[in-house]
Amino acid sequence: MSTDHPPRPSRRGFLKAGGAAVAAGASLGTGLTTSQNAQARTQPHAPADPQLAVEPFYGAHQGGIVTPQQSHTYVAALDLSTDRREDVIALLRAWTDAAARLTQGGTAAPLPTDSAGASKAAPDSGDVLGLGPCGLTITFGFGPGLFTHEGKDRYGLAARRPDALVDLPRFNGDQLIKEKTGGDLFIQACANDQQVAFHAVRQLARLAYGTAAMRWGQAGFLSGPRGQTPRNLMGFKDGTNNPSTAKPQLMNEFVWAGASADAPWMEGGTYTVVRRIRITLEHWDNTELDFQEQVFGRHKYSGAPIGKKNEFDAVDLKAEDKDGNPVIPENSHVRLSNQASNNGAQILRRSYSYNDGTNFYIERWPPWRQETEYDAGLIFIAHQSDPRTGFIPINDRLAKFDMMNQFTTHVGSAIFAVPPGAKPGSYIGAGLFET
Amino acid sequence: MSTDHPPRPSRRGFLKAGGAAVAAGASLGTGLTTSQNAQARTQPHAPADPQLAVEPFYGAHQGGIVTPQQSHTYVAALDLSTDRREDVIALLRAWTDAAARLTQGGTAAPLPTDSAGASKAAPDSGDVLGLGPCGLTITFGFGPGLFTHEGKDRYGLAARRPDALVDLPRFNGDQLIKEKTGGDLFIQACANDQQVAFHAVRQLARLAYGTAAMRWGQAGFLSGPRGQTPRNLMGFKDGTNNPSTAKPQLMNEFVWAGASADAPWMEGGTYTVVRRIRITLEHWDNTELDFQEQVFGRHKYSGAPIGKKNEFDAVDLKAEDKDGNPVIPENSHVRLSNQASNNGAQILRRSYSYNDGTNFYIERWPPWRQETEYDAGLIFIAHQSDPRTGFIPINDRLAKFDMMNQFTTHVGSAIFAVPPGAKPGSYIGAGLFET
Ligand code: HEM
Ligand code: HEM
Repeated sequence: MSTDHPPRPSRRGFLKAGGAAVAAGASLGTGLTTSQNAQARTQPHAPADPQLAVEPFYGAHQGGIVTPQQSHTYVAALDLSTDRREDVIALLRAWTDAAARLTQGGTAAPLPTDSAGASKAAPDSGDVLGLGPCGLTITFGFGPGLFTHEGKDRYGLAARRPDALVDLPRFNGDQLIKEKTGGDLFIQACANDQQVAFHAVRQLARLAYGTAAMRWGQAGFLSGPRGQTPRNLMGFKDGTNNPSTAKPQLMNEFVWAGASADAPWMEGGTYTVVRRIRITLEHWDNTELDFQEQVFGRHKYSGAPIGKKNEFDAVDLKAEDKDGNPVIPENSHVRLSNQASNNGAQILRRSYSYNDGTNFYIERWPPWRQETEYDAGLIFIAHQSDPRTGFIPINDRLAKFDMMNQFTTHVGSAIFAVPPGAKPGSYIGAGLFET
Repeated sequence: MSTDHPPRPSRRGFLKAGGAAVAAGASLGTGLTTSQNAQARTQPHAPADPQLAVEPFYGAHQGGIVTPQQSHTYVAALDLSTDRREDVIALLRAWTDAAARLTQGGTAAPLPTDSAGASKAAPDSGDVLGLGPCGLTITFGFGPGLFTHEGKDRYGLAARRPDALVDLPRFNGDQLIKEKTGGDLFIQACANDQQVAFHAVRQLARLAYGTAAMRWGQAGFLSGPRGQTPRNLMGFKDGTNNPSTAKPQLMNEFVWAGASADAPWMEGGTYTVVRRIRITLEHWDNTELDFQEQVFGRHKYSGAPIGKKNEFDAVDLKAEDKDGNPVIPENSHVRLSNQASNNGAQILRRSYSYNDGTNFYIERWPPWRQETEYDAGLIFIAHQSDPRTGFIPINDRLAKFDMMNQFTTHVGSAIFAVPPGAKPGSYIGAGLFET
């Protein structure tokens, strides 16, 4: 692939000389310009321009869990190919450093500033140069395979596997595709720009070459009028009845892992379940509005529970109509998933829609057509302090009874232990390896 | 699927009574609120909030061709399943009306305002309720199959097929996937929001049920610092050397079709080529910066032609270095595609990146790895007055010699005659059917 290189005065000039181009390059290397920083400080989550939003990387918790949801995500799982514990640690160190830079608007590593750097591959693909931090958060997680892999304890971590990091059971109706399921390591990048989210995962995956390889990756998006609950592709507001991230006691109870004897290093972390759920939008669009509202147990346009007026009115599962029938149907999605039906359990959903174009699909029910259909749906993402009381029993109930199942198929699945945030100078997962 | 319906006072109330919820619903039915309209009028293409941008639908040309590029697209091709000319006309009429509403921020059709409407499927999926027009444009096109299909003249249009609507030849290296290639009808929806773009195609495809069915659909995106040329996934600024849409004489020469004897109805239209080009980003990221610049013939960070300082400096194909070698390499992308290498031909590129996650891929060269790779690349979209002097000879040259071919594979392809815009009361394509 090598070619004769003509002299490159302009490029050297571009990166070294003064002027606007350099200023732009410098702000990308170091983070934000002063005025951007000032703006970010006064309006941490919602500056006027979403490209300028910036989220902290270091902290007690990782970002991207209780962070107000950005408009795009790219989630990925990687499989470890090394047998050496040091390699895993080195990777997590490299990821931590790169993620800290990327979230603050930098490149994965400083770009070469003279011709010495031109003869090797640049440490960043450069495709988001000039774009702001866009509120980027990067969240790392550990799958079961980090602890034991085909019965082998590759990294001496088997004894430290949290009890809560269970292998997910098979649920009713699951049609999991192996290449979209599982994974030893998890990266979730969320940003107010699709390319910024993907760029982050792409640089991190590249840092893993030789140590871990991509197992699956998936782009997602979320559109909503500013300040309002976004609607998913089924047209319903999604996220209304989440436990409030503004209430620390709810987060401590339902989202953050505590200091358990089996996995003290997980304190301040969470357990994350990812499900790729394909939706037959074509069929859904042909069902009557009334029926759609019965399926969810909520009104479509207002988002209110059936029989109520406003989106945030309480879900009253006891309400009956004049004939004594439940107002919120027995097999409706919100009745089955509500905490009153699940021993008080709650999970923090932070899902995105996905849209991978179309593919040729064979329907699962009459008239069993074979046709081009949307490969679109929901990248369901839920965080919880313990999936054994959270996702698993809730989804078990949904998988068996939810009216929505006529329109949805779970085709991908994964579970991860998401450790707490890192301190500057340390790295994500240090507690697992070093205490 | 029918269920017992409890009384629905709140929903009826929501849609009929006064108050904020109704105002929101009404603005979606009719277009913009007064304050949004005022803003849209004063800043037609770039209001402060890209959700509020609004583009005209009716006009001499269709939107989405010389319109400044929005951040997202969803492009789709459909195949006609009817044998009746009236059905095609009825579809184009319905599409025109719905597209006019959608681009102005409305739903595909008015939503039902009382319980009478609740017993049939709503005419709009509702998933972008509350979102503004987001600069939505909808562009329709006609593929070869509208004129002749397996040798049959289904709609009496064979004699009106424009000479310029050729079947694309097979190009060197093409690896076209049938399900991502061709199509009788084309819809391109571009908007400043991913869900708004997809929503438009989804409603239009639904209006076609029974007349035409989806052949392929594809989401695309484009990220750039405001007011600057966006970078594609290879990290290079893309679009720099397009003919300027601000110069009507260039558009008339290179983009708009004239009044030809064979297809007078195409005057003011254009011919659009769509290519799905997969890029092996993993390999590209491992090549040195210098080599990448040789491949394109441009500097990566500034976008300037090699040897020049600024992005918009002229591409000088005659420049030589001190050893007499061409500064812009012989097989570089811009040398081969530049108008000086193509008898003065120019095309208007209006491409988007695409990112469909990952899939299992078998590499085409050493070390022939089999692994999970990004299914990402470029949805190349080019408009031109005649593909026989535009895309075809340029791509023929690129397909044979472009250094970039090591990293790219054309996997989808389509060509369409995109008719002129419609007058209010008429419909897209009326000239083809009625003159
Ligand atoms: C395509 C798949 C799904 C769609 C479209 C969907 C959509 C919705 C919608 C529209 C709501 C009502 C608004 C809200 O409170 O957020 C909701 C609520 C909820 N969903 Fe889902 N959901 C899906 C899958 C799941 C799965 C797999 C689970 C968990 C296992 C789940 C758990 C919940 C919970 C816990 C609630 C809150 C119920 C309440 O307390 O009122 N959902 N979902
Ligand atoms: C993955 C595929 C492709 C990528 C990443 C790509 C990228 C680029 C880039 C970075 C430039 C230089 C900046 C600019 O002037 O816009 C360029 C120029 C150009 N490309 Fe492509 N391109 C691709 C495929 C194609 C194809 C298939 C064609 C046409 C058949 C084409 C036609 C052109 C033309 C006409 C120019 C302008 C050259 C000049 O006049 O300087 N490109 N492309």
